[in-house]
Amino acid sequence: MADDRKITRRDEDYSGWYQDIVLRAALGDYSPVKGCMVFRPRGYAIWEKIQADLDRRFKETGHQNAYFPLLIPESFMRKEAEHVKGFAPECAVVTHGGGALLEEPLMIRPTSETIIGYMFAKWVESYRDLPLLINQWCNVLRWEMRTRLFLRTTEFLWQEGHTLHETHAEAKEEVLRMLGVYKAFAEEMLALPVIQGRKTDSERFAGALETLCIEALMQDGKALQSGTSHDLGQNFAKAFDIEFTGRDGGRQHGWSTSWGVSTRLIGALVMAHSDDQGLVLPPRIAPEQVVIVPIWKKDEEKPPVCEEARRLQAAFKERGLAALLDDRDQFKPGYKFNEWELRGVPVRVEIGPRDVASRQCVLKRRTGGDKEAVPLLGAAARVVEVLEEIQQQLYARALALREANTHVASSYGEFKELIEQGGFIRANWDGTAETEEKVKNETKATIRCLEDGRSDPTGPCMVSGREGKFLATFARAY
Amino acid sequence: MADDRKITRRDEDYSGWYQDIVLRAALGDYSPVKGCMVFRPRGYAIWEKIQADLDRRFKETGHQNAYFPLLIPESFMRKEAEHVKGFAPECAVVTHGGGALLEEPLMIRPTSETIIGYMFAKWVESYRDLPLLINQWCNVLRWEMRTRLFLRTTEFLWQEGHTLHETHAEAKEEVLRMLGVYKAFAEEMLALPVIQGRKTDSERFAGALETLCIEALMQDGKALQSGTSHDLGQNFAKAFDIEFTGRDGGRQHGWSTSWGVSTRLIGALVMAHSDDQGLVLPPRIAPEQVVIVPIWKKDEEKPPVCEEARRLQAAFKERGLAALLDDRDQFKPGYKFNEWELRGVPVRVEIGPRDVASRQCVLKRRTGGDKEAVPLLGAAARVVEVLEEIQQQLYARALALREANTHVASSYGEFKELIEQGGFIRANWDGTAETEEKVKNETKATIRCLEDGRSDPTGPCMVSGREGKFLATFARAY
Repeated sequence: MADDRKITRRDEDYSGWYQDIVLRAALGDYSPVKGCMVFRPRGYAIWEKIQADLDRRFKETGHQNAYFPLLIPESFMRKEAEHVKGFAPECAVVTHGGGALLEEPLMIRPTSETIIGYMFAKWVESYRDLPLLINQWCNVLRWEMRTRLFLRTTEFLWQEGHTLHETHAEAKEEVLRMLGVYKAFAEEMLALPVIQGRKTDSERFAGALETLCIEALMQDGKALQSGTSHDLGQNFAKAFDIEFTGRDGGRQHGWSTSWGVSTRLIGALVMAHSDDQGLVLPPRIAPEQVVIVPIWKKDEEKPPVCEEARRLQAAFKERGLAALLDDRDQFKPGYKFNEWELRGVPVRVEIGPRDVASRQCVLKRRTGGDKEAVPLLGAAARVVEVLEEIQQQLYARALALREANTHVASSYGEFKELIEQGGFIRANWDGTAETEEKVKNETKATIRCLEDGRSDPTGPCMVSGREGKFLATFARAY
Repeated sequence: MADDRKITRRDEDYSGWYQDIVLRAALGDYSPVKGCMVFRPRGYAIWEKIQADLDRRFKETGHQNAYFPLLIPESFMRKEAEHVKGFAPECAVVTHGGGALLEEPLMIRPTSETIIGYMFAKWVESYRDLPLLINQWCNVLRWEMRTRLFLRTTEFLWQEGHTLHETHAEAKEEVLRMLGVYKAFAEEMLALPVIQGRKTDSERFAGALETLCIEALMQDGKALQSGTSHDLGQNFAKAFDIEFTGRDGGRQHGWSTSWGVSTRLIGALVMAHSDDQGLVLPPRIAPEQVVIVPIWKKDEEKPPVCEEARRLQAAFKERGLAALLDDRDQFKPGYKFNEWELRGVPVRVEIGPRDVASRQCVLKRRTGGDKEAVPLLGAAARVVEVLEEIQQQLYARALALREANTHVASSYGEFKELIEQGGFIRANWDGTAETEEKVKNETKATIRCLEDGRSDPTGPCMVSGREGKFLATFARAY
């Protein structure tokens, strides 16, 4: 149930503010299992909308869904050297099943390259079977010490795409294509502007030749990795003997990719757009797009007002809008307004006896601005317009915030000052892990990516003074 | 890849036939993890259609989706006495996480009554918060010794509904409502006629007061439980302190239900409708509803034929049909016909140069019958009609099979003869577990259910000769 306590203010305690919104807007909850969360219906409904839209994009680009086992033999994880190093420490291990000790321990998947690689080897015979374009929607587990609802949890939900190609060029094309799908999705649906580029060696996926990513900026100036796409080269093909007969009749190893986004996107959504009144959601991803609050004082006013409200709801639904009607008796309108603001419904429609008499209703946007009287007849069309305006406005606002918080540092001194205010800081880097590590230890900032087309160095490394290899984009990150 | 070996004949080796179809129609595959299977794209696509349709029905009946942790503390499983007895032997146990031994072992959910009960206790305060109507789509694990693709696997996918109510009457209504949803779904979408009724004490869900079920008959005369709906009474409410303030201001325990269907429905579909040529799917659940095979001999015939085939595909898609075009060069038409028959596409459309000239195409149903020439212009509308006819025909055929294989046994001798031929056998039963056990040991038949409105006894128990309590419905079952 909603209550009327205020939520923590964003500028007082950002992480308390975030937690208040997640809990009070009933998106998620803590569970009795350490590090694992519960996705409550309003949070899960956002995930369903994310799934529906991404799934359409995946299918349009030729991918098919499949499902592979949750449990992975320990020996599989060990077959690719980098992969096991990266993931073994994070795994949950099943040692007993059916009342007996297992001969070989099974890991709960932290990601499925290994077991999918094993199956690909079984399925592929000839170049004619390629490309294999598979996606899986599932749960994964990575043991986490410090967790945070949606953003970092031991179990999370995600999709993992896994593809196999005849040539490295085709695999690379796929890696870029899917990063593009993620970027378009984040910007169009989540109203989340993102930068894109490649990870440094130290931030790369364990077992990949190259990891591309999209990164978004949150309101507190921290970056959030919002999607990754990996060129796995022939690493997994060699580890799992994924061979096929090529056009020349010879046997060769396939080239594979993988790419994923997770329920952490829900955390990104919350952090990118919300305010001190609570959750703010882009209309295209909001499970409830408009709420109608009928207003009456005298008992005899209720039936005609509610009847008109129901008609409005029907008209909204006919337009394809997710429309709620809040005709609860036990709460006053002011209480309902607060509750739906906290819960992030983009548009509220109020209707009282006088509105009914003058055949109008009143629109109020979650993002502020004046109330707007609208004739009942044109209300649905107007709400559709307003929702679209809000979607654009949220994107523009997030983009402006990012632009205002993206700086170039010409010296390490300047970098240290800038990083305290948050945001993306672009600076020359000598390309060594040593320098990267030093910056991380001294400032808690990491290289988020080497941005596509924007990472040519402009001078010597800000830290070492050695030759600059890249203009890298740094930030403190979630 | 499809190949042209024949599949095992149904009347020679039913279970070999079933396995051939699952593997050769590329619905599923064995995995390297004992007891766990891979859902290949064509099998998973059936699950997606099952999900979409059921999900709509769940939402129409007021339910919301949510997601709860995969891992359940061992102590939770122990809180309800019957529940732990039923499920503990089947559980997979996580003992290590993040490189360390866990303080308390975690079980991978075999079902989620316990952890959802814990959360319900947190969320419910007053009768105003009720009913709570939640559903979860997820994976579950139950250690199985003898597994079979789709029908019985250690990990499977399912939905589990969990609801909480103010009164027992409301909970019972819910249990019946959801059984009704399952029955309608099975009959309308899967073309699977089912009987419905309640389980005996020995077949009841561990922790339930009463388990209702739907049961379908496969072509080999064995029954398959296709969905269950449980009245959990206050068992879990008491074990997990799910209390609320009632209308009278006093504290009381809630009444809960749970209900589920799983990916075993895919196995049911395969077994109920397929034949010696391979998979047969009801059109409403078929991921590919119509396949167009263009036919040409001379190279110059290919472009005009394929162009017309593409136009047909576009027209089919416009009608909302899932339409494939098989214009592969490397296979002959006959090979393609066999492959799509094996793979269960309900309607094949052939088009060759002479058809193009006379502005027609040829329809062939997967379920047999003559080919039918149809003008190109009306082809899409005709395919829609034909698909609907096939859907009805498959249901009628399955119903006729069930009717022909449902018998009443007036003596145990007759029962033993009848059960050898398979089917549902209805017989008087004295209501004791002892008799039930004896029948099971001697004939391998179990009581599938006490059918709604049809379980009044008509005489003494066929086994013990004691007073008949029920006219029970027996069968050998999957």
